[in-house]
Amino acid sequence: MTGMLSDWAREFLREDHVAVVSTLNKDGSPHLTTMWYLLADDGTLVMSTPGRNQKVKNLRRDPRIAVCVGDGTRSVSLYGTVTISEDQAIVRRDIEHLVERYMKDEGMRPQVVAILVQQSRVSLRFTPEKVTEFSVQNNRP
Amino acid sequence: MTGMLSDWAREFLREDHVAVVSTLNKDGSPHLTTMWYLLADDGTLVMSTPGRNQKVKNLRRDPRIAVCVGDGTRSVSLYGTVTISEDQAIVRRDIEHLVERYMKDEGMRPQVVAILVQQSRVSLRFTPEKVTEFSVQNNRP
Repeated sequence: MTGMLSDWAREFLREDHVAVVSTLNKDGSPHLTTMWYLLADDGTLVMSTPGRNQKVKNLRRDPRIAVCVGDGTRSVSLYGTVTISEDQAIVRRDIEHLVERYMKDEGMRPQVVAILVQQSRVSLRFTPEKVTEFSVQNNRP
Repeated sequence: MTGMLSDWAREFLREDHVAVVSTLNKDGSPHLTTMWYLLADDGTLVMSTPGRNQKVKNLRRDPRIAVCVGDGTRSVSLYGTVTISEDQAIVRRDIEHLVERYMKDEGMRPQVVAILVQQSRVSLRFTPEKVTEFSVQNNRP
């Protein structure tokens, strides 16, 4: 639901940022990594990661996820429950979209897609159930 | 222990970045916000936040914290157990150091310190027990 996001937050999420993603380790402690992400038109957050990674192990045990995109003056935190897809057609399409978003050099894209596709990746996808937004403009004392 | 950090990571943490900080909500789910931070010479991570904030409530219940500082090509995740300080001399000194780090406009600093000091802040401090580092340079396929 992009409806949960204010206009500035939706726009901000589509700018050039990487996300910081929190999952939960077996002992309940938080695990944090940066990730490429994509905000789809229907409000779904889409990410791609090698299936062997700790965060995927964590998400198979506990699908709760938190994603934060922020800079010095603004941040958006999105919370939800992840669906993991191993369908290689979906995985490849998501990789292509992410590479298109993050690799400004178009000539490099096919090579990067080829490398990423070979990493036994999975797609992570979730619809935010809760969103918090912070902007210095809106919170100035 | 800065000894846990590689040279590039220590330098990276001292550049202009905000951290993304994960704490644990009552139901065990991750809570994420951006924060100013400071890496002290002894390797302690220092942060300041209003004492009423959700993350402080979370840390009083479960002091486990994860902090990630990253950009498109590098990231450092630091894990530990937070000590919360309400000593207003410490709180004020930490605010001053953080404002000095983040406010490039020296003329603005006293005013910002004055505003922040009035927010019933606490200092958060932890020595990383675990660190993970990622750099595209080191992880290129």
